[in-house]
Amino acid sequence: MSDAEGDIEALIRLMARLPGFGPRSARRAVLHLLRKRDGLMAPLGEMMSHVAETVHDCPVCGNVTLAETCAICADPARAGREICVVEDVAALWAMERGGSFGGRYHVLGGVLSALDAIGPEELGIPKLLERVRGEGVSEVILALNATVDGQTTAHYIAEALDGSGVRVTSLAQGVPIGGELDYLDDGTISAALRARRAF
Amino acid sequence: MSDAEGDIEALIRLMARLPGFGPRSARRAVLHLLRKRDGLMAPLGEMMSHVAETVHDCPVCGNVTLAETCAICADPARAGREICVVEDVAALWAMERGGSFGGRYHVLGGVLSALDAIGPEELGIPKLLERVRGEGVSEVILALNATVDGQTTAHYIAEALDGSGVRVTSLAQGVPIGGELDYLDDGTISAALRARRAF
Ligand SMILES: [Zn+2]
Ligand SMILES: [Zn+2]
Repeated sequence: MSDAEGDIEALIRLMARLPGFGPRSARRAVLHLLRKRDGLMAPLGEMMSHVAETVHDCPVCGNVTLAETCAICADPARAGREICVVEDVAALWAMERGGSFGGRYHVLGGVLSALDAIGPEELGIPKLLERVRGEGVSEVILALNATVDGQTTAHYIAEALDGSGVRVTSLAQGVPIGGELDYLDDGTISAALRARRAF
Repeated sequence: MSDAEGDIEALIRLMARLPGFGPRSARRAVLHLLRKRDGLMAPLGEMMSHVAETVHDCPVCGNVTLAETCAICADPARAGREICVVEDVAALWAMERGGSFGGRYHVLGGVLSALDAIGPEELGIPKLLERVRGEGVSEVILALNATVDGQTTAHYIAEALDGSGVRVTSLAQGVPIGGELDYLDDGTISAALRARRAF
């Protein structure tokens, strides 16, 4: 036992696994929590356990939710319009922060990768095609990261939708080469959405 | 609801109150936790709740502990030697990381401050004097931060111990002016301890 008791050390080790944290900053965070046991540590622990227990993927779109379906899929005002295809929940949140998209999402949970044996089934692409037919969607916006795998996946989906009569577009202006949506500012995302072009 | 459901947003807001975190990095940490629900989020939430519920101040020294008394006070090999007086648990952990102190601690929980109405009673200084008498201590090491208030407090304690027959020393070489113990590297702390001088 170097500098704390067993469970406190275990807590520091768990905190050190958070992005942006190392052993030193995790120790500092735990010291802060120990000072704010009732005001921060207890409610944070409780909320974390509650979310971990309750959260699941929305069965419609793949977004994270604590309800049966996510708030976006549950909102009738967002139905029957565009479906925006994103790689992950981080990209979905980034799109929502942009604040200019009024449709629904389809979260792939990754991109096509022969190396990692991730094919169309793993990404729920057949389900996306089903949704496009079933929900009376007019447009599919491919908001995938501007990486090689992201663009390969976008091409695959565009081809799969060919002949379905639905408009396929992609984010255009403003997404830098190699850039990831989650790192862009909100204005850039809004501009890229407004300037979307036929894929 | 901007980018997540209510409880997930609440979790992001709580995480953003950790030192070194802001709204953006808290969001990123929560996304990471959502990806590792079973492997990280659930055990972290559980451990945080457990520590928040169980942790308390050691009734002997003021260190944080989940046991009746802290592991340092419970270790008979560390009894009847030096007592090292520190401002807070952060400083105690820093001393322990130094690895060259084999005695016990007294955590003040602050420093004397007329402005904040923190007097000797609030810092447990009468209790320290009692311990010095009761535990057969040979030396009190004042390991307070090299700030004005820290040094005022050190002088006060040294005067209170005057005539008790106990040796009063303070960390010397290596602690930079205005420096806080918790920010020093382990080697510096060990050197300062070895070169301690009569106060
Ligand atoms: Zn959904
Ligand atoms: Zn103790």
